[in-house]
Amino acid sequence: MDRRSFIRAGAFGTAGAALAAPAIAQDNITWRMVTTWPKNFPGLGIGAQRLADRVTAASGGRLTVQVYSAGELVPPLQSLDAVIDGSAEMSHGAAYYWQNKSPALAFFTGVPYGMTTGELTAWVRYMGGQEIWDEIYDQFGVQGFLSGNTGSQAGGWFRSEVKSLADIKGQRFRTPGLGGQVWEKLGATVTNLAAGDIFQALQSGTLDAAEFVGPYNDLALGFYQVAKNYYMPSFVEAGLATELVVDKAKYQALPDDLQAIIRDVSQAEYDQVSSDFIANDPRALKTLVDDHGVIVRAFPDDIMEAGAKASKEVFEELRGSSDALVQKTAESFAEALSLVRTRTEKLDTPYQVAREKYLNL
Amino acid sequence: MDRRSFIRAGAFGTAGAALAAPAIAQDNITWRMVTTWPKNFPGLGIGAQRLADRVTAASGGRLTVQVYSAGELVPPLQSLDAVIDGSAEMSHGAAYYWQNKSPALAFFTGVPYGMTTGELTAWVRYMGGQEIWDEIYDQFGVQGFLSGNTGSQAGGWFRSEVKSLADIKGQRFRTPGLGGQVWEKLGATVTNLAAGDIFQALQSGTLDAAEFVGPYNDLALGFYQVAKNYYMPSFVEAGLATELVVDKAKYQALPDDLQAIIRDVSQAEYDQVSSDFIANDPRALKTLVDDHGVIVRAFPDDIMEAGAKASKEVFEELRGSSDALVQKTAESFAEALSLVRTRTEKLDTPYQVAREKYLNL
Repeated sequence: MDRRSFIRAGAFGTAGAALAAPAIAQDNITWRMVTTWPKNFPGLGIGAQRLADRVTAASGGRLTVQVYSAGELVPPLQSLDAVIDGSAEMSHGAAYYWQNKSPALAFFTGVPYGMTTGELTAWVRYMGGQEIWDEIYDQFGVQGFLSGNTGSQAGGWFRSEVKSLADIKGQRFRTPGLGGQVWEKLGATVTNLAAGDIFQALQSGTLDAAEFVGPYNDLALGFYQVAKNYYMPSFVEAGLATELVVDKAKYQALPDDLQAIIRDVSQAEYDQVSSDFIANDPRALKTLVDDHGVIVRAFPDDIMEAGAKASKEVFEELRGSSDALVQKTAESFAEALSLVRTRTEKLDTPYQVAREKYLNL
Repeated sequence: MDRRSFIRAGAFGTAGAALAAPAIAQDNITWRMVTTWPKNFPGLGIGAQRLADRVTAASGGRLTVQVYSAGELVPPLQSLDAVIDGSAEMSHGAAYYWQNKSPALAFFTGVPYGMTTGELTAWVRYMGGQEIWDEIYDQFGVQGFLSGNTGSQAGGWFRSEVKSLADIKGQRFRTPGLGGQVWEKLGATVTNLAAGDIFQALQSGTLDAAEFVGPYNDLALGFYQVAKNYYMPSFVEAGLATELVVDKAKYQALPDDLQAIIRDVSQAEYDQVSSDFIANDPRALKTLVDDHGVIVRAFPDDIMEAGAKASKEVFEELRGSSDALVQKTAESFAEALSLVRTRTEKLDTPYQVAREKYLNL
């Protein structure tokens, strides 16, 4: 740590460190991280805790991060406000929870028919995404970092088989946010229920269908007991990126090395959380199919097509927003996706298709 | 930094720090990183330098990493040996360069018809890959970390159009390693030339075709001037993972926080390098097509199919190896791929296919 950093770090010392004879341990500070996830929630809650532990470890305890799961310090959907009002220094969640602050934030989590895990990080890190995200969050005095991604999600649990778009009409379907808007355009009656209420609603028949995340999370909630048709893929949540939000002034007052550690660990976690889902979704899917008789189905083509049309309408509403920052985000996103999709379509997809068709291991 | 870490760090101090009055700067050590990449080589050489700089920054200069590009300290293909013999503490390259030490190492870079960027990190971090990699590298006293991935690569530059498998017969094709073995089985006459010699060989007609990396790297080498048919995707290098190798004893003697920083930064770089390619490959591809008249073509199906068959043969030879560790690596890889591909095939691929078909932004 250089002298300047040391002096700045001293401002946060829990004990007043004397510059003349600095004792190593006296720099230590503790930050509170609130999260939108239940404790030990597969992939995401676990990821928030691991991110905190990695910052603590990489900083040698100079910055100790104490995690508060959903509801422990504040209700989950007040996590960002907790950072804004100073009751926490960090929040781990998903940017699209804060669409009431700016609809543009949806893009940093994922929008219907949006970006894959790799495309999103390319946009954020190399194609102007982070700069726009900073502009949005600057209004609230916070800074966002990508901190994980579920990767492509499942489309949903349906009590009855869905054979065509016509079968969607009137289905009472649990799916939140912009995805919900898309499904409404397809004819579903969309409701949003908290995770803990979905099972009961499916069982009682209040819901005909529900989507949550993917096999890894869905297995834990037991939906397979009351709906056997598991449709894939999700086209409204092709991925869900999580964020780490920090109090920007406090972050910038940290010594440079601690700032770097927070950035590095968040980015490492983008990979770690993605890996977790890539490894554990298929394990859970195998259990669902082999042990619980779940039937994995693909959405019919006319639904995939109508979904794209509806997603585009939702996107165009954002692009046409009177809020200049929302407009700018949508434009940047569209430009980036138009470019990166050429690589996905020429390289990734044909490779995956050929491997699926031709490689028997 | 805790006291125990501090004492251990002291062992590497460039100046003998007195415990009674520790001066912050006196812990600093410098490590040499040799690389297999030319200086500023797009994506990879840049990534090696950035990884080094990030370790230096996150450690506040306590661990400064000095980068030596290919040939500066040792020839590129002696990078691993330089770490083994102690002339460097770190090497940045690709594990498959060291197949002469163990053929199993190919799996940690990528094998024909192998894993995508996401699948590979899932195997390494959650499905036993890292543990086997450690077992292999323990024999040489080093430790490997994933440090980047090019993602799916291009298939190659062909002077003439390739209309079917029959057209491969006798083509003099530059492609190295296991991929070369696959192309030989398809009928090509395979040679391996250093990057700097490919252009000349294509121009003079010594080569009919060559593959290198993808648009981002290939543009810089000017192949488009002498071969206009750019075939996609590569099925022999679906991705190329880079590694950071460290001297294991020196690594383990570092204080815990510096060990954590090396791990965290390497993993952050796995994402950063991947993003770089996802953003910059399509930019380069656009330039190749719009400004240089390159024709992007897909390999005919019979080549993709024959490639899978040949790749499987190459894989089975590794699985049948008399070297127990090679066998074990191949088994672990096959088991992991068999599982993760179900997720790729049910979620990622159908999403990408539908988006390509139905979404016009």
